[in-house]
Amino acid sequence: MSETAENGWQPVRRLRTHEHVLAQIEQQILDGRLAAGDRLPGERELADYLGVSRAGVREAMRVLEALGVVSAGVGSGPTSGSVVRGEGSEALANLLRLHLALSRFTQREVMEVRIQLERWAVAEAAVHATASDVTKLRAVVLAMRQRDISYEEFNELDTGFHVSVAEMSGNALLGTLMRALRDAVRREMLAVFEDLQDWRGTADSLADQHAAIVEAIAAHDSTGATALVERHITNFYAG
Amino acid sequence: MSETAENGWQPVRRLRTHEHVLAQIEQQILDGRLAAGDRLPGERELADYLGVSRAGVREAMRVLEALGVVSAGVGSGPTSGSVVRGEGSEALANLLRLHLALSRFTQREVMEVRIQLERWAVAEAAVHATASDVTKLRAVVLAMRQRDISYEEFNELDTGFHVSVAEMSGNALLGTLMRALRDAVRREMLAVFEDLQDWRGTADSLADQHAAIVEAIAAHDSTGATALVERHITNFYAG
Repeated sequence: MSETAENGWQPVRRLRTHEHVLAQIEQQILDGRLAAGDRLPGERELADYLGVSRAGVREAMRVLEALGVVSAGVGSGPTSGSVVRGEGSEALANLLRLHLALSRFTQREVMEVRIQLERWAVAEAAVHATASDVTKLRAVVLAMRQRDISYEEFNELDTGFHVSVAEMSGNALLGTLMRALRDAVRREMLAVFEDLQDWRGTADSLADQHAAIVEAIAAHDSTGATALVERHITNFYAG
Repeated sequence: MSETAENGWQPVRRLRTHEHVLAQIEQQILDGRLAAGDRLPGERELADYLGVSRAGVREAMRVLEALGVVSAGVGSGPTSGSVVRGEGSEALANLLRLHLALSRFTQREVMEVRIQLERWAVAEAAVHATASDVTKLRAVVLAMRQRDISYEEFNELDTGFHVSVAEMSGNALLGTLMRALRDAVRREMLAVFEDLQDWRGTADSLADQHAAIVEAIAAHDSTGATALVERHITNFYAG
């Protein structure tokens, strides 16, 4: 779009080889002819089918791997082709993290989006969480109180807590977005802990706040859980 | 993760050449040494710096292009290197669309996430929208009422309306997520129109609903706008 001239003309851009390969694979996926678990033809075979160079096929595969769309194939023979994956929250998280690093979004913007998604997540979790879900969350809070963990480990548990709550909402997309947003701000969150004189004190407060959220979920108190999680996140960013 | 054996051992995976290149560029971005607008060294130069093949550098560049992180460099000489981009909502949208096609998420899940983000977006837009923002939204509604547009064009206007509202919230990340989610379900939305006996009738109802949302925003009525947008989306999916 940025290449459109003011007079409305747009230079014609010829697709490069790997882009042709990408376009064909994407179309097969969008049409449902390729699904999660399916194996793509091997590099040589695909190059023959499409009448392009093996380098072009390989470049397209690298892109699809990076997008979490296929897993790399190894070796040769009938089982050597790349496999289509059905899951890519890691790739989504990597992408978000890179774009955050490129300063496209501010910390405030990420915090605001997180608050909205977290409010909804706990409200739904309070409706849907089972007794075993609550047990799982209580165990995470207990683990967060251990005295012999590092703040990196604490942060992992913290992230796991929020992602688990999001998954208990019954919406997998929400869980994926939550993990992507958390992973995207991991570096900044660790930096906050690094700067603290007494990170363990802050960690204990955070664990207390988590414990209160768990009990609101256990009591099916959506309104209470929502208010608690909003305060929990706002306080952290306010430092 | 799926490669971890039950006994906890995980096979060591050697990074491939392009992954080494990717890792170094990503690290420079995460450390802030490479920022939006910066030019990377040319393919040959970068291959020399890193002691790897030019094919490996090229594969890494293809990946970064697909992620919307760099724009491809052309030609040779000092200005031939790829440029780091600061914007990548298109790449994010492509990625989401592919993963939706791989059935990782259901239509219900996407609709629920959209409702949450749209509710928040209109509530904030009702607070922040200026007179010229409102004028812009009214113009989109007017365009949606034109009798001589196709349903593809109608859908573009519809998407533009929702993305504009999200951008008026003052949160750029929200605008990006909204566009990604809309683009991700474009095919399904067009399929709904295709199946309608009288798509223009439905389009007129949607335009009316948009008009009501605009007036709620103009009146700074966050509560009203929120309720209207929720009904607007739910009705569409209920079809």
